[in-house]
Amino acid sequence: MQTVLEEALEAAHKNNDGKIANYIPELAAADAELTNVAVFEPDGTLYTAGSGLEVKQTLQSIAKLVVLIGLLEDVGPQAMIPWVRSEPSGSDFHSIARLDQFGPVPSNPMLNSGAISLCAHIPGNAEQQLAWLENWNKQLFGEHLNINTKVFASERRTGDRNRSLAYLLKSNGLIERDVNEVLDIYFYLCSFEANTPNLAYLAHILANGGLNPKGETIVSKQTVLNVVSIMATCGLYNESGTHLVRTGFPSKSGVSGFILATAPRRAGIAVSSPRINRKGTSIRGQIILEHLSKHLNWHFAL
Amino acid sequence: MQTVLEEALEAAHKNNDGKIANYIPELAAADAELTNVAVFEPDGTLYTAGSGLEVKQTLQSIAKLVVLIGLLEDVGPQAMIPWVRSEPSGSDFHSIARLDQFGPVPSNPMLNSGAISLCAHIPGNAEQQLAWLENWNKQLFGEHLNINTKVFASERRTGDRNRSLAYLLKSNGLIERDVNEVLDIYFYLCSFEANTPNLAYLAHILANGGLNPKGETIVSKQTVLNVVSIMATCGLYNESGTHLVRTGFPSKSGVSGFILATAPRRAGIAVSSPRINRKGTSIRGQIILEHLSKHLNWHFAL
Amino acid sequence: MQTVLEEALEAAHKNNDGKIANYIPELAAADAELTNVAVFEPDGTLYTAGSGLEVKQTLQSIAKLVVLIGLLEDVGPQAMIPWVRSEPSGSDFHSIARLDQFGPVPSNPMLNSGAISLCAHIPGNAEQQLAWLENWNKQLFGEHLNINTKVFASERRTGDRNRSLAYLLKSNGLIERDVNEVLDIYFYLCSFEANTPNLAYLAHILANGGLNPKGETIVSKQTVLNVVSIMATCGLYNESGTHLVRTGFPSKSGVSGFILATAPRRAGIAVSSPRINRKGTSIRGQIILEHLSKHLNWHFAL
Amino acid sequence: MQTVLEEALEAAHKNNDGKIANYIPELAAADAELTNVAVFEPDGTLYTAGSGLEVKQTLQSIAKLVVLIGLLEDVGPQAMIPWVRSEPSGSDFHSIARLDQFGPVPSNPMLNSGAISLCAHIPGNAEQQLAWLENWNKQLFGEHLNINTKVFASERRTGDRNRSLAYLLKSNGLIERDVNEVLDIYFYLCSFEANTPNLAYLAHILANGGLNPKGETIVSKQTVLNVVSIMATCGLYNESGTHLVRTGFPSKSGVSGFILATAPRRAGIAVSSPRINRKGTSIRGQIILEHLSKHLNWHFAL
Repeated sequence: MQTVLEEALEAAHKNNDGKIANYIPELAAADAELTNVAVFEPDGTLYTAGSGLEVKQTLQSIAKLVVLIGLLEDVGPQAMIPWVRSEPSGSDFHSIARLDQFGPVPSNPMLNSGAISLCAHIPGNAEQQLAWLENWNKQLFGEHLNINTKVFASERRTGDRNRSLAYLLKSNGLIERDVNEVLDIYFYLCSFEANTPNLAYLAHILANGGLNPKGETIVSKQTVLNVVSIMATCGLYNESGTHLVRTGFPSKSGVSGFILATAPRRAGIAVSSPRINRKGTSIRGQIILEHLSKHLNWHFAL
Repeated sequence: MQTVLEEALEAAHKNNDGKIANYIPELAAADAELTNVAVFEPDGTLYTAGSGLEVKQTLQSIAKLVVLIGLLEDVGPQAMIPWVRSEPSGSDFHSIARLDQFGPVPSNPMLNSGAISLCAHIPGNAEQQLAWLENWNKQLFGEHLNINTKVFASERRTGDRNRSLAYLLKSNGLIERDVNEVLDIYFYLCSFEANTPNLAYLAHILANGGLNPKGETIVSKQTVLNVVSIMATCGLYNESGTHLVRTGFPSKSGVSGFILATAPRRAGIAVSSPRINRKGTSIRGQIILEHLSKHLNWHFAL
Repeated sequence: MQTVLEEALEAAHKNNDGKIANYIPELAAADAELTNVAVFEPDGTLYTAGSGLEVKQTLQSIAKLVVLIGLLEDVGPQAMIPWVRSEPSGSDFHSIARLDQFGPVPSNPMLNSGAISLCAHIPGNAEQQLAWLENWNKQLFGEHLNINTKVFASERRTGDRNRSLAYLLKSNGLIERDVNEVLDIYFYLCSFEANTPNLAYLAHILANGGLNPKGETIVSKQTVLNVVSIMATCGLYNESGTHLVRTGFPSKSGVSGFILATAPRRAGIAVSSPRINRKGTSIRGQIILEHLSKHLNWHFAL
Repeated sequence: MQTVLEEALEAAHKNNDGKIANYIPELAAADAELTNVAVFEPDGTLYTAGSGLEVKQTLQSIAKLVVLIGLLEDVGPQAMIPWVRSEPSGSDFHSIARLDQFGPVPSNPMLNSGAISLCAHIPGNAEQQLAWLENWNKQLFGEHLNINTKVFASERRTGDRNRSLAYLLKSNGLIERDVNEVLDIYFYLCSFEANTPNLAYLAHILANGGLNPKGETIVSKQTVLNVVSIMATCGLYNESGTHLVRTGFPSKSGVSGFILATAPRRAGIAVSSPRINRKGTSIRGQIILEHLSKHLNWHFAL
């Protein structure tokens, strides 16, 4: 296993394509060369390789999984039907046109619109919602996560497109709360910081029917199958289909360069490298995943 | 296994929703009560249940798998990149708007536009193309399939929307041949007749890395992972995401009431029941699949 | 003339189609039978007919003309090119999809998005912007107009779709100010109250190269030709083409039931009747205009 | 008048922007410097200026006026409602997405889809339809027009996008005839050849309530107001609004470089220059029209 990981990193390092996300200064300051991978096997063994494994970075869209999982556990999929659908949209992550034409309900919870819709339904007041998120983060990533307040401030400052989505959701009847409060929760969500092994910890839970690396049940099988299915069809926006062919891993990408990937019954995987393509996916990260899939015969279809 | 199948059928029979496809007379004449299922286990054992298992019906969109598989084997996925992509479209099976706005290349080969694009690249002249299809049918369904000439004639007569798609593809530079010849191949493709066990035979190949129920290698693992991944994200058009959550089976639907489903390494499955929903998917078929997934713990994510 | 007006009203009264706008309570409380018309001839003679001529109602979308005219006079059409285009959009008045797909600049100033974009460019701070509007209202409608504060409050309360548009504009770089301030100006704009003769006064200015009924030059010919052309192609959203065929009057509609229409060099016209069709246009109002066009031979093309 | 025309040409000659249409060889071979204008005053006096006034060029989209006028005269606007609407589409001349999303009926007869829909309703068999067109051409352009058979052959050869539109129309129930026959008529329509004075002759008819330069009534006022209104809102596709602001002339453009423009009660105008912009409009032609509008005070709004 360790050899395969090292070879995968070597293959990834040959590629220097892509750009670091620069819509906010904190993301732009990332180390372009940081590239690593962490794999949890079903028995809880962790393998890692690469540089910067301990570096904490913001979850960005990876965190959409947290609110999805938490609500699936709290209220169940039936109650969530009016809030978000489970269909790939064929559109960009922040498409407003798609929501306006094919709404009123967002296509899936991996889109900004879908995640904002879910944030509006986290129970409690603002403090309780934050506590809810922190609790779920601890359960899902294996330790308490902190918020990068600079990223939060930047997301908030530059979040007009998300505000547009949120007000359209409110106009569509999907948000009852104050839109700014909902967006604050959404911006907090994106701003939690974790490292690659933290993400592999969640990947392990999703790859093993809800058990964390210590063998404790964290979420139900029903939640797992919902989340993993949605990752398979929607996790990388309008690159999801190509990614599934190429790697065979239901995955979720984030613009900070993380990809969280799950090989059901085989492994929970996370990769990190900040150079992303035009869909917001880590280019080296995809190369690593493809290498693992091929050399470990982990493609879900095989 | 047999008990689970019988229970699944019982559950399905409680539902009388949906309508038989009626855009052509031959489909409209189907027996509304015909409901069956066939399952091939990895060792080649076949289980069946329900009525009308021997009844041959037209493949309709199920046949899109044939041209996809055949070309993947013949020319490989790289050569097919200019002909069709592998992304869910978020649109109906016959959307022309989608192709016009997001083309020039069709989003995926499960859409009419994508399958027509592939039909234009089957090697040889018209006779050779038909022979190519017949040969692949025999390999993939386990026996020679016949064409329902009435259905062919009806598809041809009512195929103006497909003609519109085909001329748009030609205008986009994706078809070099005569459009009517290409469409004839496409209409033939839809008009081959098979029964549910025939479809389960193909499902077995896809669920077992390319091996048919007799243990012979029919297609490569590369082809399998391509096809099964595309089925997972695109097989039921803009119902694919919901279907994957619900059943966990990468599947392909057809308006005649078939669903071909694959549980990798576990089973190849086919169901048939002609009452379809507004997306063209067999309603009882989905109930059967959901029942099997749950009671046999076959969801791909678990 | 008076006879033709009376006959037009008679024709209009035979129609009871349409519904009073009810998205806010104040509009829903309108008198369904109120139906009237006012016509200014080039020499400043005013003809009127019908009931409720003195009743003041909110301008709603009619007021989009005010900000357009004011800015054309203040900064000229060249400076406005980055803020709004002059093309019919083929979409609804409040389409967000259109702006997202064909933006970043709104198609025309008769759409909500276009008018909001212009409101963001009224010079000065909030108080100065309101004073600017009041001044232009006085110039264009012939007297000081008051704001209906209940309507303002309702528009503000129910304005989430406009907020969504405004944040999308801000995200597109078209709004530098605080979005809530811009929207307050927009909601004020919609909430000014006028009666039908007030609107005919503005129609006179537009029909006579910028001269008010007293013969004073209020706006330049350049402004007139801009505004009247935009009314011709965009004044009734995706009903503009049909309206121009039918009446031959470049017009602007408002959901309170007003239509302001201009017959260049012939007459300035305004009508009022609150029952509107699905595009937001007064049904009786259109009948009156069509009658005048036909019986006075005022179609612009003849 | 002659001086103004000469000055307009001089202004136009300063601009060398735009490209000659080159999707078919015959258009690509046009003389890039050919630039001229013809104006019919209401009394039938013809003024001309520029080079190549006698050169016959294909009508291209100008000819959409012929089928529209002919059918308005033959069957009247009511009968045509199921065939085509009168609304600007906000889309390109050959948009298929627009028809698929907002159909089934084309938005207006200036679009390819709208003109093809009308061609399907010209009475009689193929020979009678051609005779019908030839008769209307003679009435509207003042003399018999010939077909450029090379252009016809090229249009036919390269017409796949129009075929796609036509089959979508047939699928929508708007074409009962054989699609290829309908398209042949459409391609013939585009291939008739005329010179600028021929076009000014038709412009005179439209500017003078249906009277030709000899004072004979050719079409009804009802037809004129329909056609001129549609030209105003739809004549230059998604450039119509900007053109109306700029020139004040309801116009129709063609990719061969013609613009036919009407100043109601003032003049019928035609211009020709083959360098077109991305919307398919003659750039020098627009400059000439703008010059005339300004210097003769012919803007319809003034």
